[in-house]
Amino acid sequence: MRIGLLGGSFNPPHRGHLAVARAVRAALDLDEVWLLPAPRPPHKPGRRDMASPRDRLAMVRLATQGEPGLVASDLELRRPGPSYTIDTVRTLAAERPGDCFYWVIGADTIDELPTWKEAAALLEAVTFVAVDRPGHDVEEGLRALAEGLGAEAAQRLREHLLRVDPPDVSSTEVRRRVLAGEPWEHLVPPRVAEFIRAEGLYGRNFVTRIATVRALEDFVDQRVELRGWLYKFRGKGKIAFLHLRDGTGVVQCVAKRDEVGAEALRRVKEAGQESALILRGTVRADERAPGGYEVVADDLELVAPATEEYPIALQDHGIDFLLSKRHLWLRSRKQHAVLRIRSEVCQGIRDFFYARDFVLTDAPIFTPSACEGTTNLFEVNYFDDKAYLTQSGQLYMEATAMAHGKVYCFGPTFRAERSKTRRHLTEFWMCEPEMAYATLDDAMDLAEELLEYLVGRALERCGRELAVLERDLEPLERVRRPFPRITYDEAAALLAEKGHEFRYGDDFGAPDETAISEHFDRPVLIHRYPAAVKAFYMKRDPAAPDKALCVDVIAPEGVGEVIGGGERATDLAYLEEQIAAHRLPKEAFEWYLDLRRFGSVPHAGFGLGLERTVAWIAGREHVREAIPFPRTLYRKEP
Amino acid sequence: MRIGLLGGSFNPPHRGHLAVARAVRAALDLDEVWLLPAPRPPHKPGRRDMASPRDRLAMVRLATQGEPGLVASDLELRRPGPSYTIDTVRTLAAERPGDCFYWVIGADTIDELPTWKEAAALLEAVTFVAVDRPGHDVEEGLRALAEGLGAEAAQRLREHLLRVDPPDVSSTEVRRRVLAGEPWEHLVPPRVAEFIRAEGLYGRNFVTRIATVRALEDFVDQRVELRGWLYKFRGKGKIAFLHLRDGTGVVQCVAKRDEVGAEALRRVKEAGQESALILRGTVRADERAPGGYEVVADDLELVAPATEEYPIALQDHGIDFLLSKRHLWLRSRKQHAVLRIRSEVCQGIRDFFYARDFVLTDAPIFTPSACEGTTNLFEVNYFDDKAYLTQSGQLYMEATAMAHGKVYCFGPTFRAERSKTRRHLTEFWMCEPEMAYATLDDAMDLAEELLEYLVGRALERCGRELAVLERDLEPLERVRRPFPRITYDEAAALLAEKGHEFRYGDDFGAPDETAISEHFDRPVLIHRYPAAVKAFYMKRDPAAPDKALCVDVIAPEGVGEVIGGGERATDLAYLEEQIAAHRLPKEAFEWYLDLRRFGSVPHAGFGLGLERTVAWIAGREHVREAIPFPRTLYRKEP
Repeated sequence: MRIGLLGGSFNPPHRGHLAVARAVRAALDLDEVWLLPAPRPPHKPGRRDMASPRDRLAMVRLATQGEPGLVASDLELRRPGPSYTIDTVRTLAAERPGDCFYWVIGADTIDELPTWKEAAALLEAVTFVAVDRPGHDVEEGLRALAEGLGAEAAQRLREHLLRVDPPDVSSTEVRRRVLAGEPWEHLVPPRVAEFIRAEGLYGRNFVTRIATVRALEDFVDQRVELRGWLYKFRGKGKIAFLHLRDGTGVVQCVAKRDEVGAEALRRVKEAGQESALILRGTVRADERAPGGYEVVADDLELVAPATEEYPIALQDHGIDFLLSKRHLWLRSRKQHAVLRIRSEVCQGIRDFFYARDFVLTDAPIFTPSACEGTTNLFEVNYFDDKAYLTQSGQLYMEATAMAHGKVYCFGPTFRAERSKTRRHLTEFWMCEPEMAYATLDDAMDLAEELLEYLVGRALERCGRELAVLERDLEPLERVRRPFPRITYDEAAALLAEKGHEFRYGDDFGAPDETAISEHFDRPVLIHRYPAAVKAFYMKRDPAAPDKALCVDVIAPEGVGEVIGGGERATDLAYLEEQIAAHRLPKEAFEWYLDLRRFGSVPHAGFGLGLERTVAWIAGREHVREAIPFPRTLYRKEP
Repeated sequence: MRIGLLGGSFNPPHRGHLAVARAVRAALDLDEVWLLPAPRPPHKPGRRDMASPRDRLAMVRLATQGEPGLVASDLELRRPGPSYTIDTVRTLAAERPGDCFYWVIGADTIDELPTWKEAAALLEAVTFVAVDRPGHDVEEGLRALAEGLGAEAAQRLREHLLRVDPPDVSSTEVRRRVLAGEPWEHLVPPRVAEFIRAEGLYGRNFVTRIATVRALEDFVDQRVELRGWLYKFRGKGKIAFLHLRDGTGVVQCVAKRDEVGAEALRRVKEAGQESALILRGTVRADERAPGGYEVVADDLELVAPATEEYPIALQDHGIDFLLSKRHLWLRSRKQHAVLRIRSEVCQGIRDFFYARDFVLTDAPIFTPSACEGTTNLFEVNYFDDKAYLTQSGQLYMEATAMAHGKVYCFGPTFRAERSKTRRHLTEFWMCEPEMAYATLDDAMDLAEELLEYLVGRALERCGRELAVLERDLEPLERVRRPFPRITYDEAAALLAEKGHEFRYGDDFGAPDETAISEHFDRPVLIHRYPAAVKAFYMKRDPAAPDKALCVDVIAPEGVGEVIGGGERATDLAYLEEQIAAHRLPKEAFEWYLDLRRFGSVPHAGFGLGLERTVAWIAGREHVREAIPFPRTLYRKEP
């Protein structure tokens, strides 16, 4: 048999395609002309107005129905990945050794032939037929071909030039008209028009949009493109269930072999977990699906297979292993959820203070000296000198509060503590507001308001993440003002009452905080600690000078202190005394004392530990999960 | 003469006051009873529903008009600060040695007498008369008095107990009724009622609200309280102009000696620049006033005088001096304005990315190794090991982008460069977005959109600050998309055309950037630099493999590069080669290479230098003014 081959997207097939096919068949006296829809045209990945391969094949079948000698072929669609002509030709030569094939191209693409895959071999394997419009000059194209593949190749093609004058129509124009609502039906065969109408192709709801898993609800019954990674692959044979992760969430996708192609399915399966994958298909609402939606795939595009087996399986790993693979562990659903909550809490903090006219004044990281001794400080080689990494921006916020009234900083802080508890990181983020003309009560009010806001915002906006984490919401829902406020003395009495061992006068340790917090159903504010256990800059309570006007906020559920703050001493002489008593180098604090020399006013503020707050809200035991790349005593990688 | 003294706020004076005064006069056969409005009751600073001293004196005058023997006295109002009885009594004793004074108090305050200033001396200096309601038990109060000041004092007061049954009315009740719109006129003398109505005292618009300078427009013709610092004091004699700084701005206040008291005015003047001051008065719109509003003060409350002369005068100081006083220099108007713009730009960045569903994933500060060699890295003693301070979060953002799709970090980064230019800080903030499934074009689009947004937002919300800085707005208003996009080659050709010396193949230096940017009226994107001058992780341009798919954005007005970024290499083998070619330790990058092993996808992003962006928008020559506490080669204090 003499067979013509006409490749293309056929998106959709139109009267021009048929005219060319008929003309080629007649001119070369072919037995058949096959129309071969391509899986995806090479060099055009991810076209969003591309109908599914199945629909394009169906349209080509409808178009060729009743057309003598014209045949719809799924030959290329059955092969995965980009379609290269040489592959198709070789398959045909192997399958049908007795037949003779003619490959039909447009004359305006002759000059591109040398760039085709294995062009020289291709020209040996198949006879090319170039279809040209009357009057078009092909000489330039032939010259390019001669340059690229030799004079003989050009000569052979010249012999197979065919002048055809098909109707002036293109698939692009058809799609444009459908979308624009202009007449288009006359451009395609009637059965194709019927199909386009029935399936809603190329219309408003058709154009494949890049969707996100998080926003699937906006795309129900629409065809979308999802770009992500393979999270899980299940099933074999005729149907597979793929879990696709796209950064915003994970969705279950149904891929039928007959829809996406056996080869494509096999390749994705073999590519393995965390291979990169673009998937196109239709979004369906389905109550049984996790998340409420699933995607019925019609097209799988493997972007990059995993080069080896993904090291983090669904089974349990030790924490050290997971932390050493933190760059990958981040992709796991729970870790993903925790960090998304972290992001929301951070924006919540920003919005909270912005709405209240606090000015962000970032504290420096390099500090020349220590507030509270150098024991827990990281030392840096600062050119030919030493510097330390900040433990707290508070002193600096006191300076900026005198310049801006209400300020905050929110950045990383550092503690070189040799402690290895679930509450400690060497590098963590702290948010520190400070207000001029404010008292301890103002700081307590603000702390309460902030925590209520952050927890409320997480409940409102992180429902999916909290569900992934299986977080019990009830304790969070109780975080409503007013919070209980008790003095240190009352807290100590409470511990005594409970028979909890505690020495009055000491600071509360983690077990003490837990015991106290168990007594309340929401965060508790403990104020007026013994001045001796608090920092030198705390203001003394005029009503009880051995107490400091300070407050710690203890979160419930054993989380412990999430906020510490208070009112700052305003009296120059008192601070000078304190600096001496704490044996701190006075020169280093001269600038700080200047704040009392020039317009000393009552002022107060606090620090909120971000990771503790996030771990609390997310219901994670350990703060290390509440930061993308945790740094601890024994870990500073990856 | 025998004179009774009845102190109080008289806010307002009411029928009860008059009844007591009349009864005391009659019972003790006094020649006169003086009603002495106090400047501010001690222990009640900053009462917000307190009428001005002038209005209270006026009301007492109206109340005593036509009352035989009752006299309105401005004795206490003429003295500044809190009014202590002992001071008043001593003044009177000195001024009127022949007269005999009786101090009238309520019997329910007898127990507080021992806490009065110099209580023992006071009881010697004046005879106290305690007015009591019939049936009230004063024994407890007298016991407390005996304990505190001795039995004799108690006995003397017992002899001067006076039973009076005045109408049941209090100033608090009068104010409450006025504000609530309930009948109140019968509780005060008719002339006082008339005055309250005419002046609008105690009504909705009266209650003194704590205003901010920034929000004065909301308080026109209302009485407000401003809490701040003295920025400037001008004038002497009858009228003074105070510039008050409250953190949100600076406002001119007019203080007439007759309104606020000569003594108060003198004390504030002497307290000096940057003393802390609460000022109450009425807001007036006045086009001639800087900012459009001024406050007519009626009450000055000195919170804390400056203890020495403020070191930053209005004259010029050297930059080293100013930086050494950065904690105070921050208060200057221009520095204040720059940091407020910084705060707005930061929130702008946060909002921009939040609105576009980017997840904030903070990069770690401690890094185990260097992207681009250790030369410019700060080394930290990390327990028994070394760590480095991050130069860029990008590699980490590539990891989180694979987990979250679109991410950004925004935190401090560090460069230990020994350069001392106006564009360099050792510690600066950088915002680094990264997008999975994105290309150089996507990064360029995002960069353009971000800059347009930030500049537009500053123009919209920082008008006052830009005005303080005398920033030419025209260049900022031109920052609208699309920005010009040129290749490195085009930029190099441009330099050649201008006769600017530049060696093709080199990176652009600051003078080159300036020369290029002068050619355009808005930021210019330069893309596709020679791969050799860019980092190892850049993707090569497939169309020109010696070029990297990178982009730098050069801001106009000589500001230079504010953004650098591009598309990242996705190919594992290529990156391994690059790491070897750059002689980087491969082990340190194994985690990074994992991102190519597991689902490598096209991705792109960039870094925006915050301080350069802020310095540009604010029109400041040097980036050091664009951060609260700049750190440079020679400076890490304060």
